[in-house]
Amino acid sequence: MDNCIFCKIANGIIPSATVYEDDDFRAILDIAPAHKGHIIVLPKSHTDNLYSLDDEVAAKALPLVKRLAKALKAATGCDGINILQNNEPAAGQTVFHLHIHIVPRYEGDGILPVWPQGSYADGEAAALAAEIASKLD
Amino acid sequence: MDNCIFCKIANGIIPSATVYEDDDFRAILDIAPAHKGHIIVLPKSHTDNLYSLDDEVAAKALPLVKRLAKALKAATGCDGINILQNNEPAAGQTVFHLHIHIVPRYEGDGILPVWPQGSYADGEAAALAAEIASKLD
Repeated sequence: MDNCIFCKIANGIIPSATVYEDDDFRAILDIAPAHKGHIIVLPKSHTDNLYSLDDEVAAKALPLVKRLAKALKAATGCDGINILQNNEPAAGQTVFHLHIHIVPRYEGDGILPVWPQGSYADGEAAALAAEIASKLD
Repeated sequence: MDNCIFCKIANGIIPSATVYEDDDFRAILDIAPAHKGHIIVLPKSHTDNLYSLDDEVAAKALPLVKRLAKALKAATGCDGINILQNNEPAAGQTVFHLHIHIVPRYEGDGILPVWPQGSYADGEAAALAAEIASKLD
């Protein structure tokens, strides 16, 4: 992916404030952080989003995110942490190389409002759950 | 965890609209969905949040979330998907049993606004990255 900026950052071609690196991932500080210390975790192999992420890489990602979240909390003293991963423009994805946000939060900061909470009619949720289950590979 | 509602749901003591179940997880439809089809993935073993999640369970979680996201997209025709996991009240966690949200999104729905984007002074990001790295276990 010659023109993917996150490929270049993940593989060290473009420098970054790196928190962690191994054969599969580079974790860096987001240059436009929600709060200082906001990390993004990038797989070194290009994948547009979660739908196409290699399962072996996926298996390594959350244990790493956990380690990074604990280190972020220890370093910043933040009150909480959001893990967020956006797929496709409708979900707020702006760089089309999978990345996982680790965002430190502070009491009352209000940076990530609660979404509207809908409801289901009787039986509707069970039917939709079955429909989604029928699509599992 | 006798009084944990998500332990009861994950282990089938309280019924739910279940999308998927295996030895480690139950995935259900959130009863107050951001959009219909909004899934939450619950480990069956209690853990308050990501900081204390068992690494073997963590390794299984993201490959499962990927499968569920693809099935959710196939079933709903949504335009995008957010993966979100909140730790501690400051980050919006309201039930203290780890859960991972899989939220279908539609163009222009505006349910998850972009957070404020800050910046770093020269050298500040590199110093903070090193500080976080020093806390990695």
